[in-house]
Amino acid sequence: MDFDTDATRRIAVAYVDRLERRDWPGVTELLAEDVAYEMPQSRERILGRPAFLRFNVEYPGDWHLALRRVVADGRFAALWIDARVGEEPQTACVWLELSERGLIERITDYWPESYEPMPGREHLVTRD
Amino acid sequence: MDFDTDATRRIAVAYVDRLERRDWPGVTELLAEDVAYEMPQSRERILGRPAFLRFNVEYPGDWHLALRRVVADGRFAALWIDARVGEEPQTACVWLELSERGLIERITDYWPESYEPMPGREHLVTRD
Repeated sequence: MDFDTDATRRIAVAYVDRLERRDWPGVTELLAEDVAYEMPQSRERILGRPAFLRFNVEYPGDWHLALRRVVADGRFAALWIDARVGEEPQTACVWLELSERGLIERITDYWPESYEPMPGREHLVTRD
Repeated sequence: MDFDTDATRRIAVAYVDRLERRDWPGVTELLAEDVAYEMPQSRERILGRPAFLRFNVEYPGDWHLALRRVVADGRFAALWIDARVGEEPQTACVWLELSERGLIERITDYWPESYEPMPGREHLVTRD
């Protein structure tokens, strides 16, 4: 049987919404106890619900998350997030993996940063 | 009626596979004529199938793409890609949007780069 994509989508949306609202009990409900949170760009990993919650509670600055797109498929979801810290906009690409019981057990965050265009493709490209 | 998620997933997988094989006619088949390819990190945009194909044909280096995860949902898909240029590994997070006719009409690529951990969270984190 297919995992319930609609449930995954709801959980993924709730994850962003509850983080944004600092609804820590609500976030806790969504997470497996042994959730793994990974930031491959810095090769950092946070293991377990308490450490993950503390990471978010302690995260410095006036951070905000707004969901641009959610894509859910079985027990996987991808979140395209417009974040900001104060006035500084940032983008996140987040990959969620749910357990058999419908709890988030793996979160992989990418926070891509701006860079200059590679030279040699100016003939193909327009820029904002 | 829901857009056909299974068709979207097949197209998303074929997109990566055909790029990797340099199957340019095969890639062409998947794309809307007015496809928009966007790289928000450099604020670059490439418009139209011919320019997008030329961008890939001309892209320097021995580049390779391997699909780590595809998440498809209606006419949207997200691709988590393990890329490399020569021996240099890179990750891509790619957001696809299909037209009503099942052709890829928007591609948004993020290529997150490595960075150092933010100080102050060493008590929560392990590193690879």
